[in-house]
Amino acid sequence: MPLKKNLIGEFKNIFGAASVIADETLLPAYAYDATGICVLPGCVIFPDCPENITRLLALLNEEQIPVIPRGAGTGFSGGSVPREGGVVLSFTRMNRILDLNKRDLFCVCSPGTVNGDVKERAGEQGLFYPPDPSSSDISTIGGNIAENAGGPLAFKYGVTADYLLGLKCITGDGRLIDTGSKTPKCVTGYNLKDLIAGSEGTLAIIYEATLRLIPKPESRLLLSRYFRDFTEMTAFIDSLLDEGIIPSLMEFMDRRSLLSVKEFSGIAVPDGATCLLLLELDGNLAKTAYELDKIKIMSPDPYFPLTAASNEKEAALLWKTRKALSPSVARISPTKINEDVVLPRSRIAAFLDHLACLSTSASLPIAAFGHIGDGNIHINIMTDKKNPVEYKKALDLVDGIMDRVIADGGTISGEHGIGLTKKDFLSKELSPAALNLMKQIKGVFDPNGILNPGKIFP
Amino acid sequence: MPLKKNLIGEFKNIFGAASVIADETLLPAYAYDATGICVLPGCVIFPDCPENITRLLALLNEEQIPVIPRGAGTGFSGGSVPREGGVVLSFTRMNRILDLNKRDLFCVCSPGTVNGDVKERAGEQGLFYPPDPSSSDISTIGGNIAENAGGPLAFKYGVTADYLLGLKCITGDGRLIDTGSKTPKCVTGYNLKDLIAGSEGTLAIIYEATLRLIPKPESRLLLSRYFRDFTEMTAFIDSLLDEGIIPSLMEFMDRRSLLSVKEFSGIAVPDGATCLLLLELDGNLAKTAYELDKIKIMSPDPYFPLTAASNEKEAALLWKTRKALSPSVARISPTKINEDVVLPRSRIAAFLDHLACLSTSASLPIAAFGHIGDGNIHINIMTDKKNPVEYKKALDLVDGIMDRVIADGGTISGEHGIGLTKKDFLSKELSPAALNLMKQIKGVFDPNGILNPGKIFP
Repeated sequence: MPLKKNLIGEFKNIFGAASVIADETLLPAYAYDATGICVLPGCVIFPDCPENITRLLALLNEEQIPVIPRGAGTGFSGGSVPREGGVVLSFTRMNRILDLNKRDLFCVCSPGTVNGDVKERAGEQGLFYPPDPSSSDISTIGGNIAENAGGPLAFKYGVTADYLLGLKCITGDGRLIDTGSKTPKCVTGYNLKDLIAGSEGTLAIIYEATLRLIPKPESRLLLSRYFRDFTEMTAFIDSLLDEGIIPSLMEFMDRRSLLSVKEFSGIAVPDGATCLLLLELDGNLAKTAYELDKIKIMSPDPYFPLTAASNEKEAALLWKTRKALSPSVARISPTKINEDVVLPRSRIAAFLDHLACLSTSASLPIAAFGHIGDGNIHINIMTDKKNPVEYKKALDLVDGIMDRVIADGGTISGEHGIGLTKKDFLSKELSPAALNLMKQIKGVFDPNGILNPGKIFP
Repeated sequence: MPLKKNLIGEFKNIFGAASVIADETLLPAYAYDATGICVLPGCVIFPDCPENITRLLALLNEEQIPVIPRGAGTGFSGGSVPREGGVVLSFTRMNRILDLNKRDLFCVCSPGTVNGDVKERAGEQGLFYPPDPSSSDISTIGGNIAENAGGPLAFKYGVTADYLLGLKCITGDGRLIDTGSKTPKCVTGYNLKDLIAGSEGTLAIIYEATLRLIPKPESRLLLSRYFRDFTEMTAFIDSLLDEGIIPSLMEFMDRRSLLSVKEFSGIAVPDGATCLLLLELDGNLAKTAYELDKIKIMSPDPYFPLTAASNEKEAALLWKTRKALSPSVARISPTKINEDVVLPRSRIAAFLDHLACLSTSASLPIAAFGHIGDGNIHINIMTDKKNPVEYKKALDLVDGIMDRVIADGGTISGEHGIGLTKKDFLSKELSPAALNLMKQIKGVFDPNGILNPGKIFP
């Protein structure tokens, strides 16, 4: 159902004609996210200030029209995919860093600010903003908060919400809420900011965020090592932790992932290697050197030796390999089903072996990689949507995988959210009572249900 | 209004006679917390399982009787002070560590488990549970979560909620909710656990918590240094952070605090010193040694040199001084008004100077100490409640201090919560819209308002 013409006029009155797109030839650019799911909105608005968003919400509540907040559209679960005929609020023009306070270690920014810009500006002051989704060069702080984005550094440094000090936002019924603080500690009333973080734009529209920064580590050292099998790899990780070594990241890639990325990166995959582990040590120079010495003693394997990137260029090549994984894997088959589960680390080796068996028995390629330090595995099942028999088999595999993850004490979504694609699995993890409580909370923030409807809840 | 006799009988039917105290001579032990506010409950129940709590809640909802969850009663804002005639749920007998998983770095425990017991059991496995309120030897995990307790280590390691992976709890209307996960990442549905953390028992009754553990640092090094004034101290802290040094704790004590604790600890307070800074470096041996070398170069003052505790005994003495502060300061005057504010670090020196002026002009002793790394200052205004003129003056001082904290971009409660004592200040920090939204959320969890009524909201 297209939006009424007079409404578009009213939107233009509020935001100015240049900030409202209703031309059908331009709308497709705002119709999708990284899932590939595509739904045309009724129009796209580029808001400029909270007051105008409030005016917009008054109209939308009256007309019961959905509103979908949107950053860069890089999400992996459909969180920012529009609702047909709905209003997309694109924050890409509200992208300014409003304050960066070196002494007090915070950064205030608008929701459309790109993650990488915060990192860069912080870096210029000797500071560090750790949350690091793979999309950090383009994804926005607002989207990162909405999905509570993770990334490789989460093992040591935590996820987006761990760096969220304060949030200014607007509820579905148009109330302006200022929650949290500019200080690292704050226990005044209920913690609304961490409820809104990860709520995928279903509770409130974020218009300003205060982020915590930390001093930048003096040194970063990237190491890599191949392993014969997953058990050997996870035993190695256990032994690092037993030695009190907390790498800033631990990324693994299975053999299929490595082979798919080979032509991008020129990386050699040795015979007999099941997986590659990248790990980074950070901190001061003495700390990383001390840890490297310890790790070398723990890695006496002459066939699969520990390799330290000896310069920035070598480290960059390894990173290029890791960053190229998602697009490389996608070229194996026409359709990639991308899951994002987390398991207690003790269960990972057996789980990855199980995936390999599933792949063989179903004759479907499965590539797995991800943040093994915190047990967050990205599973990519390669299939072809146009082959209904095979596709059904792939979907059945996913269903079984989710059951196993839950049985192992894990979770069905580590950092991609629920959005559209994981809705049907949510009740595997959450009880009806928990889901109902969440829906009631949604009702408090957004009584007419216009904020990003159809997301999260089955 | 005392509880009806037949209700006490019903409670005994549910929990057993030995788990219900209604004898008026025994009730006073559960009537207070560290604020000294004392309100007699109608009875005290020691629950054993969630099912029985649900049965109890059914009765209490029917009769509209308040229920007050309680750990060790060490809170500083009245969060666990009973309601007259209400039912205290004391969790001190539900105090078992149910699982401690070294590989997966988590600990599952009942709410009455003492913080220090988790630390100790984790330590036996080479692991570390950082949240460290001063009361850690007696305060419980349930109470720590309810108040989102902080402590000295929060500067580097964060607060209680940062180590909360999962929570099992019961809403006011008796729904069993299992939220969060055993894994460090989890974005399935709304983040209920961090909403319940810090909600001071007003949203749900916690009956099990899963805590995140980390590898134990190899080395800890305690340093101390006196400063001529607060500006010199905060400039020193700034220079540490500029060097990328993140101490595990930074505790300061002003001169009045130090003099009050002198006889406990035998500590010498040099002439001309306005304050003492304790700081701890932790990590591997190479890291702490490297940082110590850097700090020595930054501390060339021959009159107030940097001192490193050369052994455990010296470190213990310094700690004893810090831990003795609260009771020592309390002996200055009959009444201690204890506030817990947080300021952006850049504002602290001027704020502490301002406190000294206030103390002089009002002729009231003010002792300040606390976690200066994260700007969390404990302000102790010493007065006598029995002298109404002076007491009024002290309360007016507090009011002005809160205004200044807010104007400086700070928060009125860093780690003590709001409870009873800070309710009247809450609207200085939170807008009516935010407060109203919080009340609506309370209504979802606890429609009859029986969970810890009278707390938080003005």
